[in-house]
Amino acid sequence: MRHLRIHIAYDGTGFSGWQIQPGEKTIQGTIEEALRKITGKQTRLTGSGRTDAGVHALHQVASFSTTSTHPPEVFVRALNALLPPEIRVLCADEPPPGFHPRYSVKAKRYFYLLDLSAVQSPFISRYAWHLHRGLDIQSIHTATSYLTGRQDFAAFSGAGSSVATTIREITAVDLVEKRQMDIFFSTIEGRFLKIVFEGTGFLRHMVRNMVGTLVEIGLGRMEPAQIKTIINSRDRRLAGPTAPARGLFLERVIYDEDEGD
Amino acid sequence: MRHLRIHIAYDGTGFSGWQIQPGEKTIQGTIEEALRKITGKQTRLTGSGRTDAGVHALHQVASFSTTSTHPPEVFVRALNALLPPEIRVLCADEPPPGFHPRYSVKAKRYFYLLDLSAVQSPFISRYAWHLHRGLDIQSIHTATSYLTGRQDFAAFSGAGSSVATTIREITAVDLVEKRQMDIFFSTIEGRFLKIVFEGTGFLRHMVRNMVGTLVEIGLGRMEPAQIKTIINSRDRRLAGPTAPARGLFLERVIYDEDEGD
Repeated sequence: MRHLRIHIAYDGTGFSGWQIQPGEKTIQGTIEEALRKITGKQTRLTGSGRTDAGVHALHQVASFSTTSTHPPEVFVRALNALLPPEIRVLCADEPPPGFHPRYSVKAKRYFYLLDLSAVQSPFISRYAWHLHRGLDIQSIHTATSYLTGRQDFAAFSGAGSSVATTIREITAVDLVEKRQMDIFFSTIEGRFLKIVFEGTGFLRHMVRNMVGTLVEIGLGRMEPAQIKTIINSRDRRLAGPTAPARGLFLERVIYDEDEGD
Repeated sequence: MRHLRIHIAYDGTGFSGWQIQPGEKTIQGTIEEALRKITGKQTRLTGSGRTDAGVHALHQVASFSTTSTHPPEVFVRALNALLPPEIRVLCADEPPPGFHPRYSVKAKRYFYLLDLSAVQSPFISRYAWHLHRGLDIQSIHTATSYLTGRQDFAAFSGAGSSVATTIREITAVDLVEKRQMDIFFSTIEGRFLKIVFEGTGFLRHMVRNMVGTLVEIGLGRMEPAQIKTIINSRDRRLAGPTAPARGLFLERVIYDEDEGD
């Protein structure tokens, strides 16, 4: 058996998330079905982690074992020929010995896109949460400082997740505020806030729950320092609502072997 | 009766084009239905021109007459509340006396997006024509020089259009070649060609037929100078195929009153 790694991008809009579920159109399920057609065998795909229904990925990593002797680039072409355009295999390779798409993860970077424009461009509506009220960006900036570090994020964990520990480490939260967005080499005027989260791992719904809480703070409904109280409480009910899935992107999965940046 | 002008953007993917048609979801029909709900009266919307099924607009202009006394910004809010996110009214105003959305047009700018990347990003597939072969950009550049000027574009006119004259003037065709595209403040690596067409008016399918012909030239299946032969022939059968709608954007409608750029 060989082990092959694929690097994937997907528009999550029409999918019930990453994980295979009977009767649902999922990213994992769609790729496994394509692998079955290519190899003639049921092939289990292991991802770096799940993404929820409607969440996008600019760069997700997954791997599978196969007896097929096709070189990686043949799998790229064959998978892309069979997959819908919403899922693309960007490249494939043979990972280093001992590589595991989930256990070898060193860090992950997500970003969340908030659209604060008066009118939302139709080309951004599938990819951002449109808020009709202005946000106090300075308050959000202050609040993000309480999110970083190794902490128990139980209060930001979605219901129904069963993990051994809710302790995670967030290494950076960055805000990028812009008055315009380039898209298709044209410029759309508006007001946008991109919140970038980097950490060693994230709980289910954790990024979206943090964003929902940061928006409450930006709207003046919570104080920035309440983040501390929420984290200490370990009580999901104290945090803000879960931000919509469509604004969330898995930007990058970082492994020990990856260099820099 | 007052005359109001609206500035619109739309993602044409799920629509049967601009023009109202019984039983079809069209841009004009969807906006007229929203206007009927707002004003309580059947309201006819006149656009700067039609766009075909699947064609997008970053900036389309239309107007309507109404007895309603709502200020323009109320129409913007009410229309956006009723319209699907794929159609947005960017702003509204009262046009100068004598303004007509179609007859007052001074020029229009369209662009067409070609994606020459090995693998197409899922975030671009609705908005570009993905070609799996490389194009000779220099040949396309040479060919575009034969397209500009006041000429009879009958050979690039779609079937079934009944216009008084097929003479139009193209004032500029520009090529923009890029190795990456910014989208959502992230950079997607690839190879992209944007072809910008500006002219006083365009026939039905004219831009897509010109793009289809330029691609034939870029693929080496036609010589750049054949553009001259095609134009002189006035024969649609000599031109290349019609490029897919999804890569075409109406970028701007320019009126006499508009300044510069």
